[in-house]
Amino acid sequence: MHFEKRPFRESRDLLLQKVSRVPAETVPLDEAYGRVVAGDITAGMMIPHYDRSPYDGYALRSCDIRGAAPENPVTLTVVREIRPGDPAGRGLREGEAAKILTGAPIPEGADATVKYEDTVFSGETVTLSAPLAAGQNIIRAGEDVKKGDLLAADGTVADTAVMGLLSSQGLSEIAVYKKLRVAVISTGDELLEAGEELSGSKIYNSNRYTLTAELLKNGFAADYLGRAGDDTDGIADLLSRALQDHDAVILTGGVSAGDYDLVPDAFRKIGAEIVIHGVKMKPGMAGVYGFYQGKPCIALSGNPVSALTGFYCIAAPLLRKYAGMSRYNPEIIRVKITRDFTKGGQKGGQKGGQKGGQNRMAERILRGAMSIENGTVCLTPSREQGNVVISSLSGARILAIVPGDHGPVKAGDVLDGFII
Amino acid sequence: MHFEKRPFRESRDLLLQKVSRVPAETVPLDEAYGRVVAGDITAGMMIPHYDRSPYDGYALRSCDIRGAAPENPVTLTVVREIRPGDPAGRGLREGEAAKILTGAPIPEGADATVKYEDTVFSGETVTLSAPLAAGQNIIRAGEDVKKGDLLAADGTVADTAVMGLLSSQGLSEIAVYKKLRVAVISTGDELLEAGEELSGSKIYNSNRYTLTAELLKNGFAADYLGRAGDDTDGIADLLSRALQDHDAVILTGGVSAGDYDLVPDAFRKIGAEIVIHGVKMKPGMAGVYGFYQGKPCIALSGNPVSALTGFYCIAAPLLRKYAGMSRYNPEIIRVKITRDFTKGGQKGGQKGGQKGGQNRMAERILRGAMSIENGTVCLTPSREQGNVVISSLSGARILAIVPGDHGPVKAGDVLDGFII
Repeated sequence: MHFEKRPFRESRDLLLQKVSRVPAETVPLDEAYGRVVAGDITAGMMIPHYDRSPYDGYALRSCDIRGAAPENPVTLTVVREIRPGDPAGRGLREGEAAKILTGAPIPEGADATVKYEDTVFSGETVTLSAPLAAGQNIIRAGEDVKKGDLLAADGTVADTAVMGLLSSQGLSEIAVYKKLRVAVISTGDELLEAGEELSGSKIYNSNRYTLTAELLKNGFAADYLGRAGDDTDGIADLLSRALQDHDAVILTGGVSAGDYDLVPDAFRKIGAEIVIHGVKMKPGMAGVYGFYQGKPCIALSGNPVSALTGFYCIAAPLLRKYAGMSRYNPEIIRVKITRDFTKGGQKGGQKGGQKGGQNRMAERILRGAMSIENGTVCLTPSREQGNVVISSLSGARILAIVPGDHGPVKAGDVLDGFII
Repeated sequence: MHFEKRPFRESRDLLLQKVSRVPAETVPLDEAYGRVVAGDITAGMMIPHYDRSPYDGYALRSCDIRGAAPENPVTLTVVREIRPGDPAGRGLREGEAAKILTGAPIPEGADATVKYEDTVFSGETVTLSAPLAAGQNIIRAGEDVKKGDLLAADGTVADTAVMGLLSSQGLSEIAVYKKLRVAVISTGDELLEAGEELSGSKIYNSNRYTLTAELLKNGFAADYLGRAGDDTDGIADLLSRALQDHDAVILTGGVSAGDYDLVPDAFRKIGAEIVIHGVKMKPGMAGVYGFYQGKPCIALSGNPVSALTGFYCIAAPLLRKYAGMSRYNPEIIRVKITRDFTKGGQKGGQKGGQKGGQNRMAERILRGAMSIENGTVCLTPSREQGNVVISSLSGARILAIVPGDHGPVKAGDVLDGFII
């Protein structure tokens, strides 16, 4: 079967159209931070649920101080103190004020409050030298949140504000989407695990750690299931096993031209549908994306940078939508490039090759450090942009999308990009 | 004892000068993501540790194709294939090439590689129509990382790139600072926990959840230890208990003028040093910060927004430095305000009060939604900026610092701010 290589956004969107969503479950509010809210949550009660004071000060009847002025101060009798949590108690009568703390309920009769520092007070009296309008400095019941207000929409990640809103309603548990459990599998006979002795051109497995880090960053659970050797059967076996108790699988290696399509063959062997095979972007051109019974199966290049680029551009949005998040695609922003970028790692390769034309039209994903200079978002390209240059990831917090026909990137160019 | 209120950055810096750092421990690399690296980690070996191919293609001797041109193509004999992990094997002789996969070692004699797509190839031969320079398309040993290179500086949070760099060295464990375990305590008789019945002016505890969320976001562990009532002894008891098996404590409530200094008295009772009592900023003016045997003791206002503002501006940098992070202060950036902001929650309070002058000179911390418009970082102020307006936290991702003498904030104003 022939797969046409498409730009990453087209490839991603094809996958997003096909992906389903994991089921929901109920968790105690204590465990809800960072989880994805399942179903809109609306307010069952208004906040505050009573008229309250915004300040430490005095509650009073505005009619009692209508004529107050510096030359005509008005003194009221402080009849009691109202603290947060107290009932509002008996109403105020003419000439009376109540000492009131922030958040305490406004007593009947009172229609304004004033801060301590805007008065002259003693234990028994408070004196004002300016009037207050009826309703002044009172937080009305429902002013913050009304009954029925949307507190958290379906697909929202529960952040600090959501936790504040939900807890202020007295909720003890909420519905969230199941936390994704993603299996990570490495392929490649060249890989060593930490502790194994280095020899020949073997290298230590790093994709295992970088991809796990990215999965955790997205709020998923990640399990490393080990290495499959460079053979289709071994890969298929480990893949099948992974799919039994995981919601998705990410493999690395075994997808580039030189790997003889090991992973795509393994996908076919277990009956996984391949949706995308190769993407028109660099790095990250090698990559196979599909589904097995609705579970995303993602095979990324074995090259560390290519693997992460594929993750940021395609796998992460796919997994985020699958996890129930409503904001799954990265927000595209304009990014100013601070330094000329001559393609690192491609030191004047020969021209006119058989497939060179097509590849040269691929978008290039440029990575670099993010800075904000005078309010403008800038990207300083990492010195090296080769697929395998792991040191170039250090401090890279932002990606820019260089169109295929763009030519060399110059300092001052403004490109579309996104924060990773 | 009298405490002078200082701007938040001065208050914070006083605390930062006094804070120590938690001890280090060793963890397996699997568990290191998000942890704070203790001590500089340098490379024990170079990466790559051998000369390698950046592409799937052919390794060859550049002298053999010196005269290659479209009108004079040169054909070489492909004598074998080298895969990543293989030993480099025997050297190439005149007229020979080796098929080579990305990451595979360069055989002796070869001094250049060429991509598949820049050649015409069969199983046995490869034909080039342009020369290559000696050294072209070869990643030299040590080109990515040299022995002794700094991989992660002391105080770095282990992110994806750090995980990649450390794992590529074959490290199986690293030294990190102990993960902070922070106790959260609420005070205030007005507070209810979820499940308790609402009555009078009681309110559900939300600070417990918002502060826990922020602690988790910073990579700390958080334990909620429950409520202390509005009395010094009860607070002091719970505080003492918390300090036995936690690295720091955050309390909320009991610090504003109306609370009769309950928490400061509890600090004194257990022998904690108070360094800051009150801060010249709004919201967040009420707040007590100190240490007990080197452990940060932080008491924030009971008002949800004030508590979080104190956390973002002072408590978070303090705890981050204590946790060993080298970047503990938020990075100050220039932020463009998108909408006029008339002080919400302060609807024309009376002028000329006794302490009004000093408070009016306090910096105001304005919160709002962050957006990036044409590459410029913008803040759209939350509609309500009152201390207790929990809904105003929704979507607030950035804070701006409005100087005390600034006057009303207008759309288009550019202020210092930071992302939260």
